[in-house]
Amino acid sequence: MYTAPVFLLSDFGHDDAYVAQMKASVIKVTGTEVLLVDICHTVPAGDILSGAFHLKSSLEHLPEGSVVLAVVDPGVGSSRAGLAARWKGRYVIAPDNGLISLMGTLDDCRKLPEAPEGSSSTFHGRDLFAICAAYAAVDPDWMQTLKKLEEPVKLSFLKNTVSDNAIETTVLHVDHFGNCILNIPDSHREITGVYDRAFSAACDSSLIHTDHYQQGDAKELMLLAGSQGYLELALNGGSAGAFMGIRAGDRVTLSSEKGGLQ
Amino acid sequence: MYTAPVFLLSDFGHDDAYVAQMKASVIKVTGTEVLLVDICHTVPAGDILSGAFHLKSSLEHLPEGSVVLAVVDPGVGSSRAGLAARWKGRYVIAPDNGLISLMGTLDDCRKLPEAPEGSSSTFHGRDLFAICAAYAAVDPDWMQTLKKLEEPVKLSFLKNTVSDNAIETTVLHVDHFGNCILNIPDSHREITGVYDRAFSAACDSSLIHTDHYQQGDAKELMLLAGSQGYLELALNGGSAGAFMGIRAGDRVTLSSEKGGLQ
Amino acid sequence: MYTAPVFLLSDFGHDDAYVAQMKASVIKVTGTEVLLVDICHTVPAGDILSGAFHLKSSLEHLPEGSVVLAVVDPGVGSSRAGLAARWKGRYVIAPDNGLISLMGTLDDCRKLPEAPEGSSSTFHGRDLFAICAAYAAVDPDWMQTLKKLEEPVKLSFLKNTVSDNAIETTVLHVDHFGNCILNIPDSHREITGVYDRAFSAACDSSLIHTDHYQQGDAKELMLLAGSQGYLELALNGGSAGAFMGIRAGDRVTLSSEKGGLQ
Repeated sequence: MYTAPVFLLSDFGHDDAYVAQMKASVIKVTGTEVLLVDICHTVPAGDILSGAFHLKSSLEHLPEGSVVLAVVDPGVGSSRAGLAARWKGRYVIAPDNGLISLMGTLDDCRKLPEAPEGSSSTFHGRDLFAICAAYAAVDPDWMQTLKKLEEPVKLSFLKNTVSDNAIETTVLHVDHFGNCILNIPDSHREITGVYDRAFSAACDSSLIHTDHYQQGDAKELMLLAGSQGYLELALNGGSAGAFMGIRAGDRVTLSSEKGGLQ
Repeated sequence: MYTAPVFLLSDFGHDDAYVAQMKASVIKVTGTEVLLVDICHTVPAGDILSGAFHLKSSLEHLPEGSVVLAVVDPGVGSSRAGLAARWKGRYVIAPDNGLISLMGTLDDCRKLPEAPEGSSSTFHGRDLFAICAAYAAVDPDWMQTLKKLEEPVKLSFLKNTVSDNAIETTVLHVDHFGNCILNIPDSHREITGVYDRAFSAACDSSLIHTDHYQQGDAKELMLLAGSQGYLELALNGGSAGAFMGIRAGDRVTLSSEKGGLQ
Repeated sequence: MYTAPVFLLSDFGHDDAYVAQMKASVIKVTGTEVLLVDICHTVPAGDILSGAFHLKSSLEHLPEGSVVLAVVDPGVGSSRAGLAARWKGRYVIAPDNGLISLMGTLDDCRKLPEAPEGSSSTFHGRDLFAICAAYAAVDPDWMQTLKKLEEPVKLSFLKNTVSDNAIETTVLHVDHFGNCILNIPDSHREITGVYDRAFSAACDSSLIHTDHYQQGDAKELMLLAGSQGYLELALNGGSAGAFMGIRAGDRVTLSSEKGGLQ
């Protein structure tokens, strides 16, 4: 019997045994055949946008059939429901709190059962979600036994504002290297090729367009198509996030001094 | 042949290759069939109480037959022995320095052999304990080949002090979210229901009783049965540890203004 | 079909999904049979010396046949090539930028193919190196299909300076416990037995020789053969790195007041 790999995403950090306890719950269902892979556990505590970014940007790279156990769950124990979502052959098990906000159209979405009798009311990740992820890993049809969830919660997400010669967008994530991932799909690269300045609340900088990180001079802000499906601001050998004074959730404006986007 | 999963706990952190070298030692014995799961490697350096907490709180959640390789070992290379312990069908391989202090009654406890010829005198985790853990993973009867260890080292552990209207206890752990795990089993919840204040050296706060983290208002200290088998102090959306100014090992008093516990 | 374990080393940190995306690339080739083990992902960003140290010190401890996917790659997307190296039955897949500098003589070294069409120009770890590592894991003869790489890049590495009564050397790594790993193989222990002082830019200390970490008194600097194949400076229960004010890459001098090494 094939067991799909289970990828784990959470805000549990690395200083507790919570991730291991979720994995133990998976193994009790699947046996030791399962391949367990950590996506990231340092999502800031309760930060659903950050979790949504990591989930969305990773999902398409996972092998088809993969299951993602995504637990950023500040509302654990309250009335928020859990969900199972299917997207291009991958499965996501998560609380229904907006973690799937960036995934676009779901191929299917179902409501998880209640946490079983005797579950901890503070750790559904271990006592409910991990068990459901294991069910999905051993049986891709398992989620079809659940009731449809018609309208999963989505974050009310600040849209990009496009004007004649500028676009204002949201920083989805600042990565370990200081690269700032913007909410502009990399397929828009041609459109954005005209921009030659970037503004944040703290910084106003000229902007060059490159293909990779070692092209710009140090202190020369670059706009490039990164590896996560979005445009990124980057600095050769430095942190664009520190340079621009921006963090995830902040707004950034790209503009053209020459004017005239359309 | 079945190979049990091996769970790893240490104070090696994430900035060195020490954990990987222990895993390599396991794999050399078991082959690549083994499932390796990290419990936590950020136990503060040499902090046996913290290691003992993570070991105790995780053990009951692991699949039966699991092996835990627990290495918090400030005395490596000295005369301290190593042990193999069995507890409700799980196996623990660890230095004999008190890591098993919170596990209660052991079903069996044996003394590990000496580190093999050529071992590093500064890394028995890799050169002795990991190999023993692998033996236990492939053969649940392996530890019966070892000599009995009659009195494993236990931490002299500050007991709870119970008075008419108060209980003074030890903070076992402050987790990633700031939840303070107290040395009071959650089965005592009824008894503690009378307490309406919590004191630390730095803080005196009123206390409410809840079931999960989103029930209290922000800045309202909660006492609840957490997921680790103990009562916890928590703060909705904040850190109870920072609020109370407490860390693992500190003492906290819960009391009733109405008086009269018994 | 046997699949070799794949060990991963990078400077990607733990706050992004980059490591998971590399693992997903491996799994797409190998299937879920593969055993994936993290060596270390907190190599300082772009620090090839640090990556080279972790690679060298771990390699001999890995099971024969193991594959190491080592990605510290500040030049990603530029003209730097990739390589596959064989060393005592282990395989290394890495950018050709000096990561193999400390491995000594390679048994074979080949040039990787170009990144496939459609690869991200900022993440060859996922789109090229991980795939090559997977090929090596399922077929130990795979690298023989590649062209020879005659002169892989090596770091121009500051040599040790030996005088009559002193040796000046480089700190390769300061570990999680503050132990300072020096670029002196532990096989040189007899030669270094005469040294009784250690100097850094910030500190001048007497030095004792021990076998393990609990032998010295606190604040008594120890020189001992650590577990990583090199001599280490250590402090019982403290950080020798903080005590000496030294970090990886710094120079340290060991000397004998009695004079006369040769």
